[in-house]
Amino acid sequence: MPTYKLTIAYDGTAFAGWQLQAGQRTVQGVIEEALLPLADDRVVVHAAGRTDSGVHAAGQVISFTIPRVLPGAALLRAINVRLPRDVRVMAAEEVMPSFNARFEARRKTYRYAVNGAEVMIPFRRHFAWHVPHVLDLGAMQEAAATVLGEHDFSAFQASGGDVATSRRTILTSTVSRDGDETTYEVTGSGFLRFMVRNIVGTLVDIGRGRLRASDMRRILLSGERREASPTAPPQGLTLWRVDY
Amino acid sequence: MPTYKLTIAYDGTAFAGWQLQAGQRTVQGVIEEALLPLADDRVVVHAAGRTDSGVHAAGQVISFTIPRVLPGAALLRAINVRLPRDVRVMAAEEVMPSFNARFEARRKTYRYAVNGAEVMIPFRRHFAWHVPHVLDLGAMQEAAATVLGEHDFSAFQASGGDVATSRRTILTSTVSRDGDETTYEVTGSGFLRFMVRNIVGTLVDIGRGRLRASDMRRILLSGERREASPTAPPQGLTLWRVDY
Repeated sequence: MPTYKLTIAYDGTAFAGWQLQAGQRTVQGVIEEALLPLADDRVVVHAAGRTDSGVHAAGQVISFTIPRVLPGAALLRAINVRLPRDVRVMAAEEVMPSFNARFEARRKTYRYAVNGAEVMIPFRRHFAWHVPHVLDLGAMQEAAATVLGEHDFSAFQASGGDVATSRRTILTSTVSRDGDETTYEVTGSGFLRFMVRNIVGTLVDIGRGRLRASDMRRILLSGERREASPTAPPQGLTLWRVDY
Repeated sequence: MPTYKLTIAYDGTAFAGWQLQAGQRTVQGVIEEALLPLADDRVVVHAAGRTDSGVHAAGQVISFTIPRVLPGAALLRAINVRLPRDVRVMAAEEVMPSFNARFEARRKTYRYAVNGAEVMIPFRRHFAWHVPHVLDLGAMQEAAATVLGEHDFSAFQASGGDVATSRRTILTSTVSRDGDETTYEVTGSGFLRFMVRNIVGTLVDIGRGRLRASDMRRILLSGERREASPTAPPQGLTLWRVDY
């Protein structure tokens, strides 16, 4: 049976995250439902990143196996006509049967948007964290560079996480500004739950002057979640791309 | 009693347009409701542009008179805490009692976004018209320039319009492209109902090659609504700014 790799985008506002949950509207749920007419049985879909409630994706990658042989363009159209308008298949192709979007992802890139306007324009309310304060861009950039390389990211992990190891490798970690918006972009081999949002919470406290840029390294080395700042809200976060 | 001038922004998706209508959620309705605690009686709010259902505003200007004397910043906060999150007061100031946001607007600027991606990213679904075709930018730019100056815009007026005159003056009319999106920006002394969306409908047909750039002048001079293309959908349109 053929295996397919799809790049999908979604507006996470009205979803309880990626992962299937009984009684909740999830991205995995609506995609598996859209696939029903293409398979004899329920299809299990694997995703590169299991995004949380309210988090968006521009370039999430998923994979699944179905009994139907279809060109990518035909599969894309067949699924898109069945999907709600807040999820779209952006690209589709047949891949080797061994491909698994989750386990073979080499690098994931996330972007997080912080809006610093005194009043945030309503168009951005579902896509940015509103922080109406002057943020020190230089301090945030210096702090962001601290997480580069391989580290134990326990300090930026969701409380109660139970992964085998909290070591992850960060390849790029940059802060940029365009008008009212400050964007954090991070690429890594993998991420712990809430890791990007916990890093952003701390970067924003550094930008506001509540912490110094050098505190980033101290917090990272402490390995203590309570040393880092509160988790940034979900709506600013987008899974931007996944590389294989 | 003091008169105030407010600049407001709204996501028009969940509104039945600007103007008060019984049983409908309108921008004027939610603003007049938010003003109730600041006045003894119902306040009548005047707007520079009465946007239609689904149309957005980044810089709509409104005016009203209330018995309370308040600094602009305090008025802004008092109204924003009472407004739903899809409307925001961006700026507020006290103005001369003679000021009326509707009758004294000298120039209005609208922007219209057309998304040409094969599949439109879901983040843009409420803010752009999806036209998955190659559009000839040069032809659209040439045609857009045709409407510059003072003309009878009957050909681009909503059917059944009953305004005193359909002559309007257009000051700038440009088409630009950034990635997947083609944007039409137009500034004029005033606009007839559906005028921008009817111009865009025709520009897109020119971009697609269904009409030639030179057809724009022919349609304008005909004065016949049936000569122009269908009205472009509302979600691509934003009232961008108003000058006094």
